Amino acid sequence: MRLRGRKGIRENLEQQQELVVLDPREYKGRWSEVFGNERPIHIELGMGKGQFISGMSAKHPNVNFIGMDMYDELIRRASEKVRAIWNAQGQEEPETVRLALGNIELIEEFFAPGELERIYLNFSDPWPKKKHWRRRLTHPRFLQKYRTLLNEEGEIHFKTDSRELFQFSLNAFAASGLQMNNISLSLHEEGNPEFNVMTEYESKFVGRGMPIYRCEVIVGDAALRRYHEDKMDQF
Amino acid sequence: MRLRGRKGIRENLEQQQELVVLDPREYKGRWSEVFGNERPIHIELGMGKGQFISGMSAKHPNVNFIGMDMYDELIRRASEKVRAIWNAQGQEEPETVRLALGNIELIEEFFAPGELERIYLNFSDPWPKKKHWRRRLTHPRFLQKYRTLLNEEGEIHFKTDSRELFQFSLNAFAASGLQMNNISLSLHEEGNPEFNVMTEYESKFVGRGMPIYRCEVIVGDAALRRYHEDKMDQF
Ligand SMILES: C[S@@+](CC[C@H](N)C(=O)[O-])C[C@H]1O[C@@H](n2cnc3c(N)ncnc32)[C@H](O)[C@@H]1O
Ligand SMILES: C[S@@+](CC[C@H](N)C(=O)[O-])C[C@H]1O[C@@H](n2cnc3c(N)ncnc32)[C@H](O)[C@@H]1O
Repeated sequence: MRLRGRKGIRENLEQQQELVVLDPREYKGRWSEVFGNERPIHIELGMGKGQFISGMSAKHPNVNFIGMDMYDELIRRASEKVRAIWNAQGQEEPETVRLALGNIELIEEFFAPGELERIYLNFSDPWPKKKHWRRRLTHPRFLQKYRTLLNEEGEIHFKTDSRELFQFSLNAFAASGLQMNNISLSLHEEGNPEFNVMTEYESKFVGRGMPIYRCEVIVGDAALRRYHEDKMDQF
Repeated sequence: MRLRGRKGIRENLEQQQELVVLDPREYKGRWSEVFGNERPIHIELGMGKGQFISGMSAKHPNVNFIGMDMYDELIRRASEKVRAIWNAQGQEEPETVRLALGNIELIEEFFAPGELERIYLNFSDPWPKKKHWRRRLTHPRFLQKYRTLLNEEGEIHFKTDSRELFQFSLNAFAASGLQMNNISLSLHEEGNPEFNVMTEYESKFVGRGMPIYRCEVIVGDAALRRYHEDKMDQF
């Protein structure tokens, strides 16, 4: 194994400009140009080592994926995962994925209103102390930002192992007047659902037999119309 | 102990006309007359043996309580509990409580629109099989009835030990466009909250260390206005 200092990691990222975005501010309002197509953009906020984003991008070729995290080292590890999956599929370049370095606090500087179609929040940091609740990525102040950035098909998909964070988030969605759907208190009850790509944290917690909580939030007008047409079918 | 057949129980109930209502249809639209006052009416649907309704009535003298169940024997047992609590407080007659025999399927025959202020659903039967979900007391078809019967301060307070029923109910509230509040995935996490009067089922499950799920639903316009004024204080 090659030793890498901080500088070595940054150099590595700089050499991957087709996959890694070091300053997402540059592309605000121009992400379709970055991808070179008009497909919808789904982003994972706080992607970690990239298991979810690489799996999702392999499974859904008609969607553009952005994985965002604030640590160089995680972007590097995710870049390896994405390349491994794409190479295994015989494709040289992961055209529909970008890994972006950025602090989610600044998300409005990275994207223009309506530029995103789906936001994934997977196993976000639980911030147990009350004085840190503002940092929870499902705090109403974040939900307000997400709302602006999502388009008419916009949704937020949230999953976590933290009962406390999930409880807080349900109340935050409710207080923000957001439409919840497919609330699950035990996602893996009957095995891993077909639609579900597991994250690193999820694999670990499911392995220990812990329940996974999940909820979708329907934000965009077109998505809401479809939801209201079908919603009674589940009962 | 005196032996009691079905007939004996019915006779016992007939002798308690100041407390027991055997045909709630008679009082549709006239419950304030039954209580002899204009206080708000809170009802527990599926009261069981009456631990909750007797405890609540002792704790909240300014509220009229109705406990409803469909079995004579449960009404009888609840009547003993209510009398015991009221006598212990030195009051001869439980003026602000009525125990009503009735099938909740017919609730619209018992109450006029706007006649109720709060509906308590405590540990409602979980009906696990999908073909029986229609019977769940939080099924959208029941929620629609409750909505009509509740007044401008109307709320539904729901608690259960059943993860499946709770999950179903959250999705039913969401699909019915109802405003949820104070969702809790572990009501007894820090001991029994001050506001919470335990039911028979609750005492049993809490004793076994099982989590209790709880959610409030804000229905009435005045209650909704207050909710929206205060809702951000919790974050
Ligand atoms: C608990 S991990 C979950 C990782 C991955 N989603 C999973 O499920 O395995 C949370 C991740 O969010 C990232 N993160 C937390 N706050 C962030 C912020 N404000 N901006 C960007 N990334 C953040 C952390 O660096 C970490 O990688
Ligand atoms: C599981 S027990 C819970 C009793 C009590 N609420 C408690 O928490 O201890 C459910 C109760 O609901 C009553 N119940 C169920 N369906 C009903 C219906 N359609 N009409 C009236 N009562 C009903 C049952 O008779 C039973 O007493």
